Amino acid sequence: MYTFHDLKAVKELKKLAENPIDLSKEGALSPKRLHQMKASCLGLKLLYGTEKVTDKVIEALFRLAKEREVVKKMHAMQSGEILNCIEGYERENRAVLHTAMRDYFDRRIESQKAKKATDLAYLELEKLKSFLDKVDRQEFKEIVQVGIGGSELGPKAIYLALEAFRKEGRRAHFISNVDPDDLFSVLKQIDLSKTLVMIVSKSGTTLETATNEEFLRRAFMEVGLTPRNHMVAITGKGSPMDDPEKYCASFYIWDYIGGRYSVTSMVGCVTLALCFGMEKLLEFLKGACSMDKVALEEDVSKNLPLLGALLGIWNHNFLNYSTTAIIPYSQAMSRFPAHLQQCDMESNGKRIDKKGNSLDYLSGPIIWGEIGTNGQHSFYQLIHQGTVIVPIEFIGFKESQYGQDLSYLGTNSQQKLLANLLAQSIGLATGKKSENPNKVFPGNRPSRILLAKRCDPYSVGTILAYYEHKVAFQGFIWNINSFDQEGVQLGKVLANKIIDQMRKKSKQEDFEKDFPLGAAYLKEVEEI
Amino acid sequence: MYTFHDLKAVKELKKLAENPIDLSKEGALSPKRLHQMKASCLGLKLLYGTEKVTDKVIEALFRLAKEREVVKKMHAMQSGEILNCIEGYERENRAVLHTAMRDYFDRRIESQKAKKATDLAYLELEKLKSFLDKVDRQEFKEIVQVGIGGSELGPKAIYLALEAFRKEGRRAHFISNVDPDDLFSVLKQIDLSKTLVMIVSKSGTTLETATNEEFLRRAFMEVGLTPRNHMVAITGKGSPMDDPEKYCASFYIWDYIGGRYSVTSMVGCVTLALCFGMEKLLEFLKGACSMDKVALEEDVSKNLPLLGALLGIWNHNFLNYSTTAIIPYSQAMSRFPAHLQQCDMESNGKRIDKKGNSLDYLSGPIIWGEIGTNGQHSFYQLIHQGTVIVPIEFIGFKESQYGQDLSYLGTNSQQKLLANLLAQSIGLATGKKSENPNKVFPGNRPSRILLAKRCDPYSVGTILAYYEHKVAFQGFIWNINSFDQEGVQLGKVLANKIIDQMRKKSKQEDFEKDFPLGAAYLKEVEEI
Repeated sequence: MYTFHDLKAVKELKKLAENPIDLSKEGALSPKRLHQMKASCLGLKLLYGTEKVTDKVIEALFRLAKEREVVKKMHAMQSGEILNCIEGYERENRAVLHTAMRDYFDRRIESQKAKKATDLAYLELEKLKSFLDKVDRQEFKEIVQVGIGGSELGPKAIYLALEAFRKEGRRAHFISNVDPDDLFSVLKQIDLSKTLVMIVSKSGTTLETATNEEFLRRAFMEVGLTPRNHMVAITGKGSPMDDPEKYCASFYIWDYIGGRYSVTSMVGCVTLALCFGMEKLLEFLKGACSMDKVALEEDVSKNLPLLGALLGIWNHNFLNYSTTAIIPYSQAMSRFPAHLQQCDMESNGKRIDKKGNSLDYLSGPIIWGEIGTNGQHSFYQLIHQGTVIVPIEFIGFKESQYGQDLSYLGTNSQQKLLANLLAQSIGLATGKKSENPNKVFPGNRPSRILLAKRCDPYSVGTILAYYEHKVAFQGFIWNINSFDQEGVQLGKVLANKIIDQMRKKSKQEDFEKDFPLGAAYLKEVEEI
Repeated sequence: MYTFHDLKAVKELKKLAENPIDLSKEGALSPKRLHQMKASCLGLKLLYGTEKVTDKVIEALFRLAKEREVVKKMHAMQSGEILNCIEGYERENRAVLHTAMRDYFDRRIESQKAKKATDLAYLELEKLKSFLDKVDRQEFKEIVQVGIGGSELGPKAIYLALEAFRKEGRRAHFISNVDPDDLFSVLKQIDLSKTLVMIVSKSGTTLETATNEEFLRRAFMEVGLTPRNHMVAITGKGSPMDDPEKYCASFYIWDYIGGRYSVTSMVGCVTLALCFGMEKLLEFLKGACSMDKVALEEDVSKNLPLLGALLGIWNHNFLNYSTTAIIPYSQAMSRFPAHLQQCDMESNGKRIDKKGNSLDYLSGPIIWGEIGTNGQHSFYQLIHQGTVIVPIEFIGFKESQYGQDLSYLGTNSQQKLLANLLAQSIGLATGKKSENPNKVFPGNRPSRILLAKRCDPYSVGTILAYYEHKVAFQGFIWNINSFDQEGVQLGKVLANKIIDQMRKKSKQEDFEKDFPLGAAYLKEVEEI
């Protein structure tokens, strides 16, 4: 079996990893290095001089990308070839076409499959335009999006990222958890008569979403409102939710749109357009679309998502760091790490390759993170002086969103924010010597910076797609299927067994026989 | 040098770790095991049958605790001995007395130092009582807490955890980041004339907090209000913020209260009392105080925080898992993982022991997490089928907070939430076989469950203190100082250099000479 370990570039990289650069050594970091180790596109800059790489490592990583033909695979993905599959086994067998959901601008992808998907998506976008007018006339103020996983994380992350651009008098809420407390805390804040609810579920059968929908329908009825007039379905065509008797409008998604890649489909677009308007939505989609084209760039040094992917492979597979922290220095990006956590870990948390063989190398890392500067007052202690190394992906902006800022002690807040980000990246790499062992910073801790001018719809679109493609490229390099999620099934099956029992369908003895561990746990719960 | 590796119990544990139990093996998990491997106190249950431990491992872990005399150290801590120190080097040299901030109930700690700290804290609590009456008369509706790190994370986590118990017509907001967008998004929501602002900084000089305070003062003046009438200081006595001309009230904290342990001091209590009332605050404090007493229990099997600490040591130091995920199945606990991330990683992300020697063993792990069931639709794919193992600490509740719940398909939402938690714990351990490699769940992935009856003030107090002491016990076992944070200094120093330059105090050439890497980064920012 020919595996990852047999790749020529992998062998080279293993050798290079025996003696990686020590960033804390005198002269290892220089202004020249910081200026050279960068890549730019679409107003974004990726600064990676503080990663533990040398030119040789970068060259070997580029060869790894070539050896795995990852740009060709990206092209195949964007063209609608069946990439969501495991050869020789029952599988989803689907195309992966989230990029088609935004291919409305320059240099459109030419494959028939992609074009067809884009045409269908455009029809939804047209529908959305007329729907917006209708909603404006009815003076809906509160948009409640009910969905879980990709139906919440991406849309919420982008909504918060762009809240500064929100239309006066309209705001969004997100309900995801089956926890009744989640729903009630939203209900307490809104006037139902001015509320429009998006129910988002591709299958139309997601337990959490169906439960919350039922709850909301009753809430509308209790105050004498007709639920249908307030409910919009965002679902697969023909799903149980595709029912005009129950919803005042329906928007479609397709099986080639994975939940975690669905924010630029109607899953995200409806709420985003309602809150920000069509123009801002299109700027956001254009940002994402532009990055899709960058991901097709053969020259790796210009292909930012691929470069980002390769740096991650180096840190994870060769330097053996098991996590990556994503730390935006921007309050608006507060839920971005949670969205990327899903996008990355659900895509690349896999244990078999595309032929069904067990991996004997690492696939996706653990992704976590919070915003800066807050993190500096929290977990940075461990990042600087702990015994576990955490590679960091910083995200920063030159300008603030609101344009309102305070000059205090001679600098404004946005400057302070950025100064902190830059300082951390340098401090982590260089470290600091001291006679007092408690004041020693060992340094040599890797990070990179993704820098944009301002957190606006276009740049957020580019950053979103940058990460989507970073994840896809890593999946291509590991030769795994990044587009299914079989790993979430077992929990569902077992949970349903317990739920069945709670419903008292079966006798206690039968349940103990059928699922003794579940019965044991239930007993522990009862006794508390 | 006698180190961790020389401990007798460590040697035993290393041996046991060569051949740990495989939870996925037929018969490894049984109802009997699940019932036996548990500990209870104060209405909490810790279920750890799904951790990769055997009775032998547990016994060896207990011996490790004895060998390190950790309960004695906990007693010393609660009695006010100087534990925040590194022998032979310049250090903070302080007592660690957050437990004294809540020792108002049964079996009070008898040491003079602790008593004195409690007496002082009680005076603040009395002050708070009269202050509440005053605030009620003035009809303040919006409480804005300005602080960062421990001055935000703990108070916000607890506020959200208990929001269901909020007084009608009063709510809290938290501003932490120096990002101006953070502050403006709060300002947009509130009526300043009904707003009371808590400025929280022990030193009275925290940059982010001072910046945001200045911003708010100007905002009050712009609408013709006198800032002093709306500003409360929570700070160290004698700090620059201890100034009655600038604040309508001051509450004190002391140098023996670390930021990350400050939520039961006035740092948390003022806002919590304003929003929930004194009675609920006292229930919360009583929960924490009761757990403090449990942490003094010599019998490890009854000492829940110590048991939790030891299980973590086993996973981290002996099974080599570098992270721990904390996953509460409760929407209310949404910011609890972020608080614990600080509490744990800032405390135990250390690289030297208490004598200043470099550690040759692992100290604190990376802590991360989100709430369930949301995580199931996000990163659980990796947790079940990825190549990196993640030990999980689940937190669950039998009943919902609001008491309002919907029966849908025969069970209510709280039942569904709990069923999912239980199912995950079992599924992660047992795994599942399949002919289809993509449907194989390898299992043998460790987790535990901390279970309480309901997410209410008392139980949240117990859970908070459980984690505070879990972290302290691990620090005692690693023989590190869990109570300082030297690791955050370097970033501050370098950031200030860059901020100075932004202020154009020095010529470009001088800055390039003084801090060439900072100058290089600034150039990259300029060019974007």
